[in-house]
Amino acid sequence: MKAIQDYYAEKYSHCYGCGRNNPQGHHLKSYPDGEQTIARFTVPEQYTGGVPEHVYGGMVASLLDCHGTASAAYFAAQNEGLSLDEELGRCRFVTASLKVDFLQPTPIATELVIRASLRAVEGRKVQLEMTMSAAGSITAKAEMLAVRLQN
Amino acid sequence: MKAIQDYYAEKYSHCYGCGRNNPQGHHLKSYPDGEQTIARFTVPEQYTGGVPEHVYGGMVASLLDCHGTASAAYFAAQNEGLSLDEELGRCRFVTASLKVDFLQPTPIATELVIRASLRAVEGRKVQLEMTMSAAGSITAKAEMLAVRLQN
Repeated sequence: MKAIQDYYAEKYSHCYGCGRNNPQGHHLKSYPDGEQTIARFTVPEQYTGGVPEHVYGGMVASLLDCHGTASAAYFAAQNEGLSLDEELGRCRFVTASLKVDFLQPTPIATELVIRASLRAVEGRKVQLEMTMSAAGSITAKAEMLAVRLQN
Repeated sequence: MKAIQDYYAEKYSHCYGCGRNNPQGHHLKSYPDGEQTIARFTVPEQYTGGVPEHVYGGMVASLLDCHGTASAAYFAAQNEGLSLDEELGRCRFVTASLKVDFLQPTPIATELVIRASLRAVEGRKVQLEMTMSAAGSITAKAEMLAVRLQN
């Protein structure tokens, strides 16, 4: 199944977090999952926080940010009755604001599950909420405001 | 001059964003600067966002996060009349919450200046505000709540 990021136009596919055209990046992949979207990612050990067994804060934010902008495109397409091809052929979503609450340390070398839910679509703005979980326990929550950047 | 992060205990110095014991990381260094703290960093080209000339969102959040936790330790030490050696010998600050507002794209391969200002210290909690600037123009603003983790 094609990930949401695989629909991004070539010129928008260089992101270190999720771009297929960035050879050194994380290549995060997000997918529709019922009413939500989902991404799974196991953080390599070099992206440790202050203590070696935990993911560093910037990486937690990065995964949430890339999953959030992909999810915003998906929710906007759903809202307008467009396919992902149609939606992402004309735009990309970028982050206007991201708030991350770090609830507990996020473990390294463990599969993380990142989920997004739509809160509201208003014109070119999409608001969504996200969670990051490890072994069924939520380690971080986030709120995002994403904005459509026209092609 | 020794950076704030250079006072972190060995066991807390593995962060990909700012740990001296992480050979692959960014090694962000934060310093006192009058009433504020400051860090300067030029983002290497692989950490691009969707378009190659801009920094990816996760990297913006990462630099703000690492500068923020270092700054929290510095402001807490100031508030209690402790040296950084004394403050960071007994604790490390971790992020409870980080909100980033992305005001405009942050350029790659340009020196970024990150500044933090204290908003409040209350027990083991420190609230601060930050800005990221490129060529004198603010590209992102942030609010952080950091919490002291006792040794």
